[in-house]
Amino acid sequence: MKNLSTLQKLITILQETQHISSAISLLSWDQETYMPKGAGEARAAQLSFLMGLQHERQIGKALKKALFEWVDLETGSLKTDSSDWEDAASALLREAWRDYHHASCLPSDFVRTLGLESSLAHQVWIEARKTNNFSLFAPRLKHIVALKKQEAEYLGYEESPYDALMDRFEPGMTVAKIAPLFEALKAKLVPLVQKIAQSKIKADEALFKKYYDPQKQWDFGLDVLKTMGYDFNCGRQDRSAHPFTTSFHPSDVRITTRVDAHDLLSSLFSSIHEGGHGLYDQGLPAEYYGTPLGDSISLGIHESQSRLWENSVGRSRAFWTHFFPKLVAIFPENLKGVDFETFYTAVNGVRPSLIRVESDEVTYNLHIMLRFEIERLIFEEGLPVEELPAVWNEKMESYLGIRPETDADGVLQDVHWSGGAFGYFPTYTLGNLYAAQFFNQAKQDMPDLTDKISAGDLLPLKTWLNEKIHRLGRQYSSEQMVRRVCGEAPNPDYFTDYLEEKFSKIYRFSS
Amino acid sequence: MKNLSTLQKLITILQETQHISSAISLLSWDQETYMPKGAGEARAAQLSFLMGLQHERQIGKALKKALFEWVDLETGSLKTDSSDWEDAASALLREAWRDYHHASCLPSDFVRTLGLESSLAHQVWIEARKTNNFSLFAPRLKHIVALKKQEAEYLGYEESPYDALMDRFEPGMTVAKIAPLFEALKAKLVPLVQKIAQSKIKADEALFKKYYDPQKQWDFGLDVLKTMGYDFNCGRQDRSAHPFTTSFHPSDVRITTRVDAHDLLSSLFSSIHEGGHGLYDQGLPAEYYGTPLGDSISLGIHESQSRLWENSVGRSRAFWTHFFPKLVAIFPENLKGVDFETFYTAVNGVRPSLIRVESDEVTYNLHIMLRFEIERLIFEEGLPVEELPAVWNEKMESYLGIRPETDADGVLQDVHWSGGAFGYFPTYTLGNLYAAQFFNQAKQDMPDLTDKISAGDLLPLKTWLNEKIHRLGRQYSSEQMVRRVCGEAPNPDYFTDYLEEKFSKIYRFSS
Repeated sequence: MKNLSTLQKLITILQETQHISSAISLLSWDQETYMPKGAGEARAAQLSFLMGLQHERQIGKALKKALFEWVDLETGSLKTDSSDWEDAASALLREAWRDYHHASCLPSDFVRTLGLESSLAHQVWIEARKTNNFSLFAPRLKHIVALKKQEAEYLGYEESPYDALMDRFEPGMTVAKIAPLFEALKAKLVPLVQKIAQSKIKADEALFKKYYDPQKQWDFGLDVLKTMGYDFNCGRQDRSAHPFTTSFHPSDVRITTRVDAHDLLSSLFSSIHEGGHGLYDQGLPAEYYGTPLGDSISLGIHESQSRLWENSVGRSRAFWTHFFPKLVAIFPENLKGVDFETFYTAVNGVRPSLIRVESDEVTYNLHIMLRFEIERLIFEEGLPVEELPAVWNEKMESYLGIRPETDADGVLQDVHWSGGAFGYFPTYTLGNLYAAQFFNQAKQDMPDLTDKISAGDLLPLKTWLNEKIHRLGRQYSSEQMVRRVCGEAPNPDYFTDYLEEKFSKIYRFSS
Repeated sequence: MKNLSTLQKLITILQETQHISSAISLLSWDQETYMPKGAGEARAAQLSFLMGLQHERQIGKALKKALFEWVDLETGSLKTDSSDWEDAASALLREAWRDYHHASCLPSDFVRTLGLESSLAHQVWIEARKTNNFSLFAPRLKHIVALKKQEAEYLGYEESPYDALMDRFEPGMTVAKIAPLFEALKAKLVPLVQKIAQSKIKADEALFKKYYDPQKQWDFGLDVLKTMGYDFNCGRQDRSAHPFTTSFHPSDVRITTRVDAHDLLSSLFSSIHEGGHGLYDQGLPAEYYGTPLGDSISLGIHESQSRLWENSVGRSRAFWTHFFPKLVAIFPENLKGVDFETFYTAVNGVRPSLIRVESDEVTYNLHIMLRFEIERLIFEEGLPVEELPAVWNEKMESYLGIRPETDADGVLQDVHWSGGAFGYFPTYTLGNLYAAQFFNQAKQDMPDLTDKISAGDLLPLKTWLNEKIHRLGRQYSSEQMVRRVCGEAPNPDYFTDYLEEKFSKIYRFSS
């Protein structure tokens, strides 16, 4: 039976290409953390060139030859019966072909141009957001949208060009699948938001807006990360304008956060969120670095890891049972005398807000649905870039009942579009759905999990995720993975049941 | 007449290769500053691969074709009369061929192996130095020496294999040229050291060993760097175990330093020294990034820039006339009441010491000569690696009259050999010689230079260096550059005259 050792040549070629990809990732990390401001243009040119080089290798002769030995390059089907192959090996071939196929749809010049334009647009977006000037960003965004439309055509699709874009982030995801899911979710979320708004229980969020020493916040975040099992021998945390996670190898996974002296939870939940991503990347098998077996399944599954830690764990009663006393000891002047219920309710404040990344577990997905609809309008209906601010503001009003006063707090708030990441947002909501289902299963598998968390012992959960999900790389699709772990297809009810149960208790209404 | 626009194709190819080289530089910078410890092995593999890739492009078809259009690839001679070419363009062709020729002497596999071994040896050296365990490092160093011997054979030489290694760092430099120079220098330095030792004036170096708040030291260093004109919009300073400068582009030049709370001058002079390197790299013409016209001439000339700032400026009476009162204001508890002469003499303490990077202007070059002799013994006489500690200690005794008690303070102190940088040390002394000659000329060209420096106005000197040296890249050889700037061939007397004049005044003996 053929196994992974049969594929050594292919694996080596993939790992060499990954060396270039990881250099690109470091250059990008550096751009967001330590790069001097004046270097933006040179860095953009460099990134563009390296992306082209990476792409040339992804479709290069060596890769094609090594793949063609086992796989039909046109169709992706194995040349010999799949029963000849061990599962991991056939999965590697299936996914390596998928990557090759996607890359081969795009000309290298196109990849370079997109890389260059994205890098430049990103820099303009930073300035536009800072100065609340959408018209500065609009011409750049137009370029990006045109390129992404072109990309969708290169990649091909059955129903919607937007499908081609989503598929890059969540393989197999389509508008046809996701639109009804989002509708069903919305039908449950909107009344839930209303019930919470009508509750007599109010979250005292002013509690978190006092002055909290940034260094102490930072140190507390590190403490939580260490408790989660994030390995600082193989990772770091740095500051950046927008929190993110990047990985160069399982032995070098980096997360970032930002610290606001007048927002206790912003930095902490960023750290926990990115730490969840980081645990996934650190848990991928190093021996398959650079191959699909050393890669994450999809952005939705990746996001499930960050959401599980941030929300299912980080905003839970059990988590704060352990960590609240520690926090009080660090910030006695602000928190001494605050009772646990007040604090826990404040952590779980729910209210319509303008900024996605600051929103709560319940309203968060409404922010995503708004973006999903706008992206569909752009790619399915040809909505012009100039009209984005108006459409954004209308939809905010219709979904959340509030209207941004500035574009900086509206259409300019997210980094994604500047980098060409259209089709990315829906994976955030998918992540929430997967997270709830995984966490439910973890509690089934480990009946004492809540007790462990209450005692500050987070490692059993981390180990469970390592074992069940991380170590398998991309051997299974996201749907297969959910079925494997939970014995059931992806099911959004776990998420809405979780929300109803949790928030009906906090805000005391019948679920 | 053919000019640089004729060479656009070649320039583009060189710049693309530079994108890879700059990525390698960032990966190396990161390795010394922020990389998590656990990532060493993965980083070594990545660097090795990328060095091979860079090398493949340096001798690749595209480069050869673009170069062959104008140059005979075997001999480097121009195909048409050199009077057909503008100076800058013919210089670009001459130097691009030189780079190509060197690269073409080395097989790509050899380059990859050397990259991997250097990276691994570097990590072992760190551990060996920390634990004072030369025998841990010896087997790795043996590999490196064997590879460098191989490299010398690949590159070819006329008299000494060591010439081939020095030529990489200082084009055209040979043992035959440098050995008599070093002998002459030694003949003047040894009596100078003696005269200073016999002087009744003693430097009160204990002054600098009190506690000096590291953050205040850091901030003072930044202040000096800004005054020098180091551009923080196109550069940074970070902490690392060993100070260094690296450049990814003139808009992104990074220096590092280390801060010791009980050594006021160590961090400051590191900053000034690396800042001098940084000014050179920031002053190179961005439009020729990646080509010889955007590159520095040699390590000797590079070092002349750091030494000029560190010693001719940073340890001068004029410099401290401006900066001493500022320093007193920052550290009043340690420095209030210390008179200027005491401070200035302490800055210029001269005494035999074990560690090269902590030694003074006068004894420094003796440290270099010792290393030069040992490197010659290795490459000309086959001195075995195992014998290095004993030979080192003997030579220390003979040159400086002191013997290291540990190998960490002896043969293990420098990073260079772990990275395969044999033939590098002599460029430090060349840098001292060039620096003295350049600075002498700067004072001729700007008679009020000393007054400017005394007033804290360092920009005229920076601008002079930009104009005279930096902006010209590698258009001229080091010897040509010295002749161009100073109207005379490189002449070591400027350095010894400078030392005698300065130190005879401080230590009050007749020069």
